[in-house]
Parts: sequence; C-alpha cells; structure tokens
Amino acid sequence: MSEYSPLIANLIQALGKLPGIGRKTAQRLAFHILDAPVEEAEALAQAVLQAKKSIHLCAECCNFTENDLCEVCSNPKRDHTTICVVESPRDLAAMERIHEYKGLYHVLHGVISPMQNQGPETLKLRELLSRLQNHPEVSEVILATNSSVEGEATALYVARLLKPSGIRCTRIAHGLPMGADIEYADEVTLARALTGRTDL
Amino acid sequence: MSEYSPLIANLIQALGKLPGIGRKTAQRLAFHILDAPVEEAEALAQAVLQAKKSIHLCAECCNFTENDLCEVCSNPKRDHTTICVVESPRDLAAMERIHEYKGLYHVLHGVISPMQNQGPETLKLRELLSRLQNHPEVSEVILATNSSVEGEATALYVARLLKPSGIRCTRIAHGLPMGADIEYADEVTLARALTGRTDL
Repeated sequence: MSEYSPLIANLIQALGKLPGIGRKTAQRLAFHILDAPVEEAEALAQAVLQAKKSIHLCAECCNFTENDLCEVCSNPKRDHTTICVVESPRDLAAMERIHEYKGLYHVLHGVISPMQNQGPETLKLRELLSRLQNHPEVSEVILATNSSVEGEATALYVARLLKPSGIRCTRIAHGLPMGADIEYADEVTLARALTGRTDL
Repeated sequence: MSEYSPLIANLIQALGKLPGIGRKTAQRLAFHILDAPVEEAEALAQAVLQAKKSIHLCAECCNFTENDLCEVCSNPKRDHTTICVVESPRDLAAMERIHEYKGLYHVLHGVISPMQNQGPETLKLRELLSRLQNHPEVSEVILATNSSVEGEATALYVARLLKPSGIRCTRIAHGLPMGADIEYADEVTLARALTGRTDL
C-alpha cells in the first residue's frame, strides 16, 4: 500500500498482528500513536519491552512473574495443600478476582487439542508432576480448565495422570454454561462453580 | 488490581490508553504479547519508537512524513495547481485509495469544534495561507472535510478565509451520507463526491 510512508505502514503492520486488531483498527491505533504525546508512545513501547524482558514463568506454578516465584506461590498465607490447575494466566487472574480461593495454582499454558496439533506434551504437565513429588503436603488438585471440549478432555487427562499418586482430584462444578470461557464468566457464577466442585 | 504483577499491570494500562481498547481487550493484547515470540514484541515496540521518532509533519502540506516533504508534495507528476484540504492524514489516505485525485493536499489536523474547545487557531490554517502566498500557481482549493456539523463549519470557514485571495474554492459533493466519516466511506461514494464538487 503506497498511501502511507514506510514507517507508518510498518507500525500499522506491527499493530495488525495483535489479536482482534484488523487493518482499519490498526490504522486508527497507529494514527493515535502518531498524534499522542511522545511520552505516551514511549511508555507503551517501554511497557512492551520491559514486560517481555523481565516476565518469565514462575518456577513452581508456571504463572507469569518478574521474580523467581510468583506472588501467589511466595505468599505463606496461601493454602499450600491445594493446587488449582488452569489453562492460562488470564484464567488465574479470573480466579483471583472472586477472592474466595486461597490455595495455589498451576498454569498449563494450553489445552490438549488434537485439531490444533496440541498434545499433552506441550502443556506444563511434567512440571506439575515433579511439583507434586517435591511437595507431598499437596492433598487436592482442582481442575479449573474451561468447560469447552478441549478443557474437559484436558481435565480428564490430568485426573487420569494423577490417579496413581492418590491425590484427590476435583473438577470445578458446571455452574458455568457449557462452552463459556472462564475469563469472561461473572464472579458469582465462577464462585458457585468453585464451591460445587466434585470428585473425578 | 493485585491479580497481575506490576509489569503486566503496567503493560495493560499502557495498551488501555489506545482508542477503542477497553480493559478486557488490553488484557488480551498484553497476554498475547507475553506469549508471542520476543522478536514480534520487539518489532512492535521498535515500530512505535521509530515512527514516533522519525515521523513529523510535511513542510508543505502538514501530512505525516519521514522526509522534509511528503511523497505527494515531492512528486513532480502530481498536479501542483490543486490543493485538497482534509481533516487528518487518515482522510488523505482514504482520498489516495480512490486513485482519481492527482493534486496536492493540505492536512488541517482537526476541525473547528467549539464544543471541544477547538478554535480555528488550532488548525494548520496559517500554514495553508502562507503556502498559497508562496505558490501563486494554485488555482483551486477543494474542501474535503467530513460531512459532519464540524466538518461543514470548517469548510465554510476556510472558504470565507480564502475569499479575498480569489482562489476557486470547492466542496466535495454530498454523495456521502450526512454525518459519515470520510475515512470509512467506500471508494465509489468517495469518488462520486470528488467528481460532483460545487463552488462555495
């Protein structure tokens, strides 16, 4: 497209790679950035670089963190006998927002999805298993994957994987409508789903 | 909000300042950036910084450019006797997309809008006047501001401002529905509006 100078076209293209940002929206964002004060643009660029540079996975639960251990894992007030397994850090944030769960988490960073070529080996399951071996105090693993087909399959897979260890494996209740994403569930529904969890 | 680490919260906040990006979308974008390859994130940050650093206003028409003169102004094949006045660089890009206009542009960078405390002195009108004085070859000024109330008022204001100079002042036709933005008009409508321009 020749209607923009190369640097603007480059900015539009970079913004267009973000999820849910089409070409028109990318143009709008690009021109907003060009119009905005230079401090705002630099703050955005720095936020991206800083986050990318300093954020890595928690050594215990694989959540995003800037320290060795994330805030949840390093908090002695949390209940270290319960681990809630979630698909993504965003699901973890959604769980935290209900202010009812006091245990720890484990972030899988994905679900089993043969259609997308995502097998169990792409998830943080090895980390979960060695974590359970190192921490015999863990007495319950709550499976809080999405209630989609892939989330259900992943929950069943993890439950079967943990069976030999004898640790209690529970699944959050289907208070949430089937097919919905945890991230977008309202707090009440999510709290009910946590309370009504059942043995797998 | 304590559910995210400071750097992630900072990134979400920076993304949330972009137009049309709410808190949920900002979260989605932030986690996409954290998941994405480091090259993609760096490319985005660099694109923002580079564009912000190197892009400034064209010395003639006030369009965004990385050179002294923008591509249109520095193109000897363009018709230098006609100037099309637009509100923003995005409107200029929309005009370029119809591939029918061969003249030059002048970007006002805004419209007269008393409700938003935007008077005529905030627009690039001084630049337009001195440009017309320096370039007596200009024989027509086409007013292609949006067909909103503010755009109409701005067109009338510019027409009255240029009256003493005796230069022909035209307004693009109201082929576009009233209240619509030039940026989002389809090419055919915009081309018809350009062809049917009338004297003011």
